[in-house]
Amino acid sequence: MNAALEQRTLSIRTNGRSLIPLGEKVQGALQASPFTRGLCTLFVAHTSASLLINEGADPEVTRDLERFFARLVPDGDPLFLHRAEGPDDMPAHVRTALTQTSLSLPFANGTLSLGTWQEVFLWEHRHAPHTRSISLTLIGEAT
Amino acid sequence: MNAALEQRTLSIRTNGRSLIPLGEKVQGALQASPFTRGLCTLFVAHTSASLLINEGADPEVTRDLERFFARLVPDGDPLFLHRAEGPDDMPAHVRTALTQTSLSLPFANGTLSLGTWQEVFLWEHRHAPHTRSISLTLIGEAT
Amino acid sequence: MNAALEQRTLSIRTNGRSLIPLGEKVQGALQASPFTRGLCTLFVAHTSASLLINEGADPEVTRDLERFFARLVPDGDPLFLHRAEGPDDMPAHVRTALTQTSLSLPFANGTLSLGTWQEVFLWEHRHAPHTRSISLTLIGEAT
Repeated sequence: MNAALEQRTLSIRTNGRSLIPLGEKVQGALQASPFTRGLCTLFVAHTSASLLINEGADPEVTRDLERFFARLVPDGDPLFLHRAEGPDDMPAHVRTALTQTSLSLPFANGTLSLGTWQEVFLWEHRHAPHTRSISLTLIGEAT
Repeated sequence: MNAALEQRTLSIRTNGRSLIPLGEKVQGALQASPFTRGLCTLFVAHTSASLLINEGADPEVTRDLERFFARLVPDGDPLFLHRAEGPDDMPAHVRTALTQTSLSLPFANGTLSLGTWQEVFLWEHRHAPHTRSISLTLIGEAT
Repeated sequence: MNAALEQRTLSIRTNGRSLIPLGEKVQGALQASPFTRGLCTLFVAHTSASLLINEGADPEVTRDLERFFARLVPDGDPLFLHRAEGPDDMPAHVRTALTQTSLSLPFANGTLSLGTWQEVFLWEHRHAPHTRSISLTLIGEAT
């Protein structure tokens, strides 16, 4: 059977540095599509927010991820000369470089094929609230 | 010509923290498909194992990668509060965050288009053996 | 409408460690294709050069990225035993592991759907000049 494609955009309002679960919204877009199996590619159109798949069950995991990245890429590090938007400006770009801007998720039977413990997150790296745009490209089959 | 898609699952038994070459198994799945060219997307359905493309010729490279990540994300780091499964639990999640959960590989003439030195690895980040599931989505053309 | 696919290769001559903008060349390949919307997957066939999406407007950002990675993965680090090609050999592999070998970019109306500040870069991690091969797989619709 031939594959077809669809595109959609999610708009997510963030409220400071944090990891925001996206799985339910992506699953919703999938259900609104004609496809039962295929590949869903997420792309975040920003350079100070990124995508991440990690453990979604214990909230201590995302807090530990945040602690690790805050230590690895400290806000206000004198190494950084790009500080136009403040001490979290360049760290946000580095954290984005170390994680993902695009992610491809398989789906089957109309459902994302995530593992038991996996959640898809948008990671807002800035302390100020932002509106983040995530584009979804679904390549799939309707069976 | 129209594109079509196929999905498959690889199951890999790991034997403690290590990098396990996947290229041959992925190539096998490709050969079992009707496609001669296209894109093969790997997705590992876990949060303490990840995917990586790196040098596969000199085994010292994967040992150096292991040494670097062990220093960057130390087991038992007191920074981490998520320790339910032991000192390598949270480091495994961080190492997964710093590498890949999904990877897309082009293929042509029925063969993965990897560079001379490239190998695709599953990186088991836990010290205990696990069975890891990797899904393959092939989007391709049969010529 | 059915999806189809095309593959192309970009060859990029690098001139020592640096981030080289690719957006214009990828956009050119898009325009030479029959597709108006879809997904463009880049794959770099090397283990000491990688792909990155980050801020392309202020050149201080790429300089800061370079400073950060030079501090995180120092050339000549005695931790590394793989030094066949010199002090930047293994650091180039680690920097590749920490960034991307494949990247999937959506496009619509014949144009890459990048955010305002986003640029796609090839990151050459070696100090010597190299010729780097990047394969493009376009999966799209012609409307």
